Amino acid sequence: MPRTKKKVCIVGSGNWGSAIAKIVGANVVKFNNKFEEEVTMYVYEEMINNKKLTEIINEQHENVKYLPGHKLPANVVAVPDVVNAAREADILVFVIPHQFIRTLCATLLGKIKPTAVGLSLIKGFDQGDGTSIELISKIIEKHLNIPCYVLMGANLANEVAEEKFCETTIGCKDKRLAPLLRDVIQTPNFRVVVVEDAEAVEVCGALKNIVACAAGFVDGLGLGDNTKAAVIRLGLMEMVKFVDTFYGGSKLSTFFESCGVADLITTCYGGRNRRVCEQFVKTAKTIKELEDELLAGQKLQGPATADEVNAMLKNRNLMDKFPLFTAVHRICTKDLKPTELIDQIRSHPEHVMRLEGVVEDAEDDA
Amino acid sequence: MPRTKKKVCIVGSGNWGSAIAKIVGANVVKFNNKFEEEVTMYVYEEMINNKKLTEIINEQHENVKYLPGHKLPANVVAVPDVVNAAREADILVFVIPHQFIRTLCATLLGKIKPTAVGLSLIKGFDQGDGTSIELISKIIEKHLNIPCYVLMGANLANEVAEEKFCETTIGCKDKRLAPLLRDVIQTPNFRVVVVEDAEAVEVCGALKNIVACAAGFVDGLGLGDNTKAAVIRLGLMEMVKFVDTFYGGSKLSTFFESCGVADLITTCYGGRNRRVCEQFVKTAKTIKELEDELLAGQKLQGPATADEVNAMLKNRNLMDKFPLFTAVHRICTKDLKPTELIDQIRSHPEHVMRLEGVVEDAEDDA
Repeated sequence: MPRTKKKVCIVGSGNWGSAIAKIVGANVVKFNNKFEEEVTMYVYEEMINNKKLTEIINEQHENVKYLPGHKLPANVVAVPDVVNAAREADILVFVIPHQFIRTLCATLLGKIKPTAVGLSLIKGFDQGDGTSIELISKIIEKHLNIPCYVLMGANLANEVAEEKFCETTIGCKDKRLAPLLRDVIQTPNFRVVVVEDAEAVEVCGALKNIVACAAGFVDGLGLGDNTKAAVIRLGLMEMVKFVDTFYGGSKLSTFFESCGVADLITTCYGGRNRRVCEQFVKTAKTIKELEDELLAGQKLQGPATADEVNAMLKNRNLMDKFPLFTAVHRICTKDLKPTELIDQIRSHPEHVMRLEGVVEDAEDDA
Repeated sequence: MPRTKKKVCIVGSGNWGSAIAKIVGANVVKFNNKFEEEVTMYVYEEMINNKKLTEIINEQHENVKYLPGHKLPANVVAVPDVVNAAREADILVFVIPHQFIRTLCATLLGKIKPTAVGLSLIKGFDQGDGTSIELISKIIEKHLNIPCYVLMGANLANEVAEEKFCETTIGCKDKRLAPLLRDVIQTPNFRVVVVEDAEAVEVCGALKNIVACAAGFVDGLGLGDNTKAAVIRLGLMEMVKFVDTFYGGSKLSTFFESCGVADLITTCYGGRNRRVCEQFVKTAKTIKELEDELLAGQKLQGPATADEVNAMLKNRNLMDKFPLFTAVHRICTKDLKPTELIDQIRSHPEHVMRLEGVVEDAEDDA
């Protein structure tokens, strides 16, 4: 009789990867009729006080470096070699920094099960050829020859690990696979909605950081609650339009999911893009200087994504249809003063009369 | 030749009424081909340091009691008698506390121009017969025999008066009237989107306060950013479902306007409903006690609206389809502990697989 239980591998073990490993490890035991009990977790090996991180995790069941204070289930096994970790897996959960994805795929190609499927938790775009970004899930599909679905939401890793109630969105068109992905992820405190629009789900996870930069500028300028709400809303509208323009066919309802409005809110009120951009206004330092100063080696995703998006918009001559995204890019590159942000969005293409039969703007796409 | 210029009356002169009078007064001068220059403003007469408030406004051009520090245009004329203020008006902008609307309509009935139209800025429901709320605009339409449209948005009055950039939403089906209402309201810093769904626009302005109570409970309980985002999102979903259930035919896009997501965000991060409900959790005082203590005579709209909405839901046996609205009502009335909020929404009807052909829930309306 063929083995029908699915084996899960977590490819990555940072803050978010370890939090999701805690959930997946528990769920495969709960649904042991559907899943193999052992979950492998690929851990980039490093030495912590003269001991290997994989050994610490496998002995103490805690990722002391990236998720200290939380026990991982004992059935989560840290593996320092990614091929060994992934070889037997039916479900590969990708949760590594996006800049490593191409190398990772090259390493895994031909070494994994041909029937495996991916679930990407990776936020951000791949720069592609410079004029058009590529979605991380598409890179995985192309370079590993497996289907890859996505999970995004208002999910600060530490709060998820603390089992505080939240929601997440899985984008997966495959009707047979969707219940399995939900079961491996959902807990009483981590609630899953599955939608078909995987591309919209993934794009939201990157574009929200551009909007958070705008929210940070508004905070830095002290423009108040009304303005901040307007900027966040206009950012959301540009997210919708961007998906419509470049990926087509998404449902508006997808933007109401956790990956959309909820993640956007959290990022625009908390989040490091907002914080750094607030300081950018107040200090007149460059983004690069603030990254070095405030982020301990991490790179800010908002300005990088704004740059990538700007290249796409420029290429299609669409910059004036996305005045907020464009203004954020220009401010981050010091081509525009933060105080000029509002002038750029004052006559936003969204400010129209959406009445049937009333055509106000030749290109009104309401 | 008949007079074609429209005359505007502001019915009300509180904080919001005075802020909007500042805008309307300037706009009628700007568009003096469309509007009469004089704007009347009905002011409930009161004595300020032995002087009538109407006299102060007409001499100093400032509502020293409700919008101190802001000059009103000199063409805004305070009138203590509402019939005198409204008699000649073509556009009546209603901006009084909602509990006075029926009395006001009774006073004005038969005394205004039969061709007049209303624009209601009044938030909140009228209790109607106890099992079904009535929209304020409908009360005006019914009791004054004029069409009445609405304006709602993320519009804290003081920030609008300070001319900080923001957006607002006008709900108006009338294609000929819509441009006129926009022109009387829009400025470079107060941007208008007109949509047809007047009912959805108005309902959002009331329901958001229920969601803000839930956000306040989450803050009081210290549940963190993920949970707050989830609660706000589920509240938004219940707002959509409520409009769909009781008013039908609205567009999902209307909830993306300033009246929807933007006003909701502002209310759930700032706003008095959030603040009082946070204290409700932390102090164990009743809502009534906190109102008296924190709001200087004002009444909190969230718990009252939750009560009215609960009566409607109970009447239609729909409470379990709106678990967040129901939980807020039960918490406000001490029928449920705030710590039990999350248990009520853990298995929310929104947590489903929205895949074509996958029917998870007999009543899934995704």
